[in-house]
Amino acid sequence: MITGKNYIGAERSAAGSKIFSTFNPVSNIENEPQFYEASSEEIDKAVALAWKAFTCYQDYSGEQKSEFLNAIADEIEALGDELINTYCAESGLPRGRAMGERGRTVFQLRSFAELVKKGDWVEASIDTAQPDRAPIPKPDIRKMMIPLGPVVVFGASNFPLAYSTAGGDTAAALAAGCPVIVKSHPMHAGTGELVASAIIKAAERTGMPEGVFSNLNSSGIEVGVQLVQHPKVKAVGFTGSIRGGRALYDLAAKREEPIPVFAEMGSVNPVVFLPEALKARAEALAKTYAGSVTLGTGQFCTNPGLLFGIKGAGLDHFIKRLAEEIVLIEPGCMLHPNIIGAYEANKGKALSQKGLQLVAEYEQEVGNNMARQAVTTVEGGTFLDNPALHQEVFGPFTMVVQCEDKAQLEAIILKLEGQLTGTLIAEEDEAIAFRGVVEALRNRVGRLIFNGVPTGVEVCPSMVHGGPYPASTDSRFTAVGINSIKRWVRPFSYQDWPNELLPAALKNENPLGIKRYINNQLSTETL
Amino acid sequence: MITGKNYIGAERSAAGSKIFSTFNPVSNIENEPQFYEASSEEIDKAVALAWKAFTCYQDYSGEQKSEFLNAIADEIEALGDELINTYCAESGLPRGRAMGERGRTVFQLRSFAELVKKGDWVEASIDTAQPDRAPIPKPDIRKMMIPLGPVVVFGASNFPLAYSTAGGDTAAALAAGCPVIVKSHPMHAGTGELVASAIIKAAERTGMPEGVFSNLNSSGIEVGVQLVQHPKVKAVGFTGSIRGGRALYDLAAKREEPIPVFAEMGSVNPVVFLPEALKARAEALAKTYAGSVTLGTGQFCTNPGLLFGIKGAGLDHFIKRLAEEIVLIEPGCMLHPNIIGAYEANKGKALSQKGLQLVAEYEQEVGNNMARQAVTTVEGGTFLDNPALHQEVFGPFTMVVQCEDKAQLEAIILKLEGQLTGTLIAEEDEAIAFRGVVEALRNRVGRLIFNGVPTGVEVCPSMVHGGPYPASTDSRFTAVGINSIKRWVRPFSYQDWPNELLPAALKNENPLGIKRYINNQLSTETL
Repeated sequence: MITGKNYIGAERSAAGSKIFSTFNPVSNIENEPQFYEASSEEIDKAVALAWKAFTCYQDYSGEQKSEFLNAIADEIEALGDELINTYCAESGLPRGRAMGERGRTVFQLRSFAELVKKGDWVEASIDTAQPDRAPIPKPDIRKMMIPLGPVVVFGASNFPLAYSTAGGDTAAALAAGCPVIVKSHPMHAGTGELVASAIIKAAERTGMPEGVFSNLNSSGIEVGVQLVQHPKVKAVGFTGSIRGGRALYDLAAKREEPIPVFAEMGSVNPVVFLPEALKARAEALAKTYAGSVTLGTGQFCTNPGLLFGIKGAGLDHFIKRLAEEIVLIEPGCMLHPNIIGAYEANKGKALSQKGLQLVAEYEQEVGNNMARQAVTTVEGGTFLDNPALHQEVFGPFTMVVQCEDKAQLEAIILKLEGQLTGTLIAEEDEAIAFRGVVEALRNRVGRLIFNGVPTGVEVCPSMVHGGPYPASTDSRFTAVGINSIKRWVRPFSYQDWPNELLPAALKNENPLGIKRYINNQLSTETL
Repeated sequence: MITGKNYIGAERSAAGSKIFSTFNPVSNIENEPQFYEASSEEIDKAVALAWKAFTCYQDYSGEQKSEFLNAIADEIEALGDELINTYCAESGLPRGRAMGERGRTVFQLRSFAELVKKGDWVEASIDTAQPDRAPIPKPDIRKMMIPLGPVVVFGASNFPLAYSTAGGDTAAALAAGCPVIVKSHPMHAGTGELVASAIIKAAERTGMPEGVFSNLNSSGIEVGVQLVQHPKVKAVGFTGSIRGGRALYDLAAKREEPIPVFAEMGSVNPVVFLPEALKARAEALAKTYAGSVTLGTGQFCTNPGLLFGIKGAGLDHFIKRLAEEIVLIEPGCMLHPNIIGAYEANKGKALSQKGLQLVAEYEQEVGNNMARQAVTTVEGGTFLDNPALHQEVFGPFTMVVQCEDKAQLEAIILKLEGQLTGTLIAEEDEAIAFRGVVEALRNRVGRLIFNGVPTGVEVCPSMVHGGPYPASTDSRFTAVGINSIKRWVRPFSYQDWPNELLPAALKNENPLGIKRYINNQLSTETL
């Protein structure tokens, strides 16, 4: 049941006076529950509890953390229809999407459970002593990853489950041994509270320390600002807009003790269509891309907002067919009136730029908060000279940039901001002829896709969901996959530490049976 | 031969009008060569060359980079006595130290050469496709580490070789595939130029691209500021003061595109002496610590500046013996008149704090720029309440903090800033009784040492040289050891990319024979 209260550790709390509601964009009315924004005292209490929890939770075994993560997954599933219904009411997203996203969320939790149970992820490394080494003896040095401390997670508007309360950031942080404080997203505070209740239940059931998790409601920026500035908060995870992510990054960088902020932010996900591919497959590509641009009403981080081609009959045909295909698709509802408002405003702003032409837009009557998808086009030279055209229009919108030639295409790619993904649509031999373009693209993105679509982020160890700024604030990490745990941990060395006082991962006996580097050779041996 | 010029790529250049010299602190006179500070145009040119070099150097094979790094090591050794003499003349450090540091420098270069030749470091990971998966097919995703781009390295004053021109930061960046621009340290610009000449020779000999390395002279902050703000610079390495490192961090965070700065900065390296250990070994400990405090004239990042004990006869005896031992040691010369000036000023400032008592100070006549080592002591309560006493006095200075009891000791540790190291001096059973102290210490440091000294940073894979702020700006990385390469690389994914277009590390055939994660299982198999 949704109470509208915060979770300060396991305690439900509503000490603040600011009250807000969520909104159902499909029925275009406010949802019933009222939420209590966390007060300054509640925030302080949640952080103090998280810090206290950290002093013991950091040493919980992989087995214990694994049970906790699996229990969270189970409890989320046990929420059943209440969760799905709340998700749909707060996001306007369809039921199938809600169930898919729930599946992804529990899969992520279980992947991290498996990772920490196995234990190798701590990257244990042992360099044995050489007491007789000249001129000075070599000490025994052993290293492993340890957690940073309490992590604050900002839920994303566009993924109420998979990138929010128990999403990838939270799962990775809890797996690492970091307590988590979620700043719940105001657009889906009810979904957040339900998931938080599942985490709290799981924590109690598996004997986790009080304060290992808190969930704070917020309607504006104040709760987040106080959290990021709190001296006992040691890292921040965020998924959202460039403006929001950059503001948090700046706050964290200005602290007396700066802390890492991993913000996954904007991306227009350039797609390069090479001429031979267009010649061979314009029909199919137009269908596929009409689908990719409008998937989830264009509200994916990996939505293809920029399509590049070289002028010619092939590109003309593709544009014509894309325009025809895209208006056949039923418009979808966007997450919130503010979001559709921003979509229409940004689309209008883009179309007011000199040289940008509207090729197609859905023109029939649409329901509440439904977005009219649009295809636009512009000359390469115009695009190159106007940075305003490089900006993301969040929603089912795309721009086909018509380049004069290969050189201009390469020049444009080199000028793009950092991106989550870059896609190449090519016949195999063509990619070699366009080597310069491909290499330029590689230096701007976190993931390169061949003859596919950028939408759809597979959750697997080899996935990179991140990229050069402003795709993320630190391209050295990924937000998706088990390696995303690296955002919340630091390497730590013990020198000549007695075996009985070492953590299990570094003991001579290798009681966890994990893979370790021993004098730089990987093995599971004992010492 | 030292020319005083910058290396803009392979070209010697002296276009600027600002001229400066280095100083010999032993003879107390300026050294002869005159150095030309890099002009704004020279800086731009070096960065443009580095960017151009990056477009090809990023794809050089491990074999090629390995040859380059080994050639640098060889060329540094081939500089022979000229390097050693210049090092001594510019630092006042003794000849033995110069040779030891040269050995460490070439060892680091060769370690990275071995690392990249072996090739496993790229953390290759392959998740194979499942075309038949329901509800949607799984794509083929492959990941590896790729270099960030041009890296700027700021040489350290206290390690003219091992943490400077061809030091750990440079070696790691070149190994990663990042061109390097060194902002040479003004105190040892001649040593820097000689090492730069070795790098340039090695680059030419092994066919590296022009601009893979540049060396820029500077006497003030301007060169560094311009470099850190340059849009084509993608990361920064720094070793030095908190003020300097924080200034660079702030500049980088304020860029339109923020970039990572790994700054290894201040540390007072707390040492906790437990009662039974003092009872058993006060004599030996006093001797050892007199040596550690004065090693390298107290100019190591890991110098033990804070010694903690619990009041009692054992601690009294230790302080008395430490005082007696430390004045027996011959004072050493500090690196520069500015540095000894700062040492005396900071020592004076510390001694002006209420409650800090001088226990021993070297009192005999000393030569030019020689530092009088000092031992001071203070009550735990006084220390706890006065943050000024927590600050580093760079030089052969230490402070013994006399705690009332275990609780006060723990309270003090919890209040310390982040540190590179923490040391526990204990009998084995004692460490368990002081568990709270040890855990508090662990959360403040990057490396814990048992019954040793913090000075001496072993170069090995398990070493962490870094730690919570202000020991470093990002505790998730180490500045020493092969894993320091992780500062300059980012993970990158290819999705459904044709085998023939993939980099060697990710090809089906595994032509490099490296260890890879295939569907999350480590192996050297082909696909």
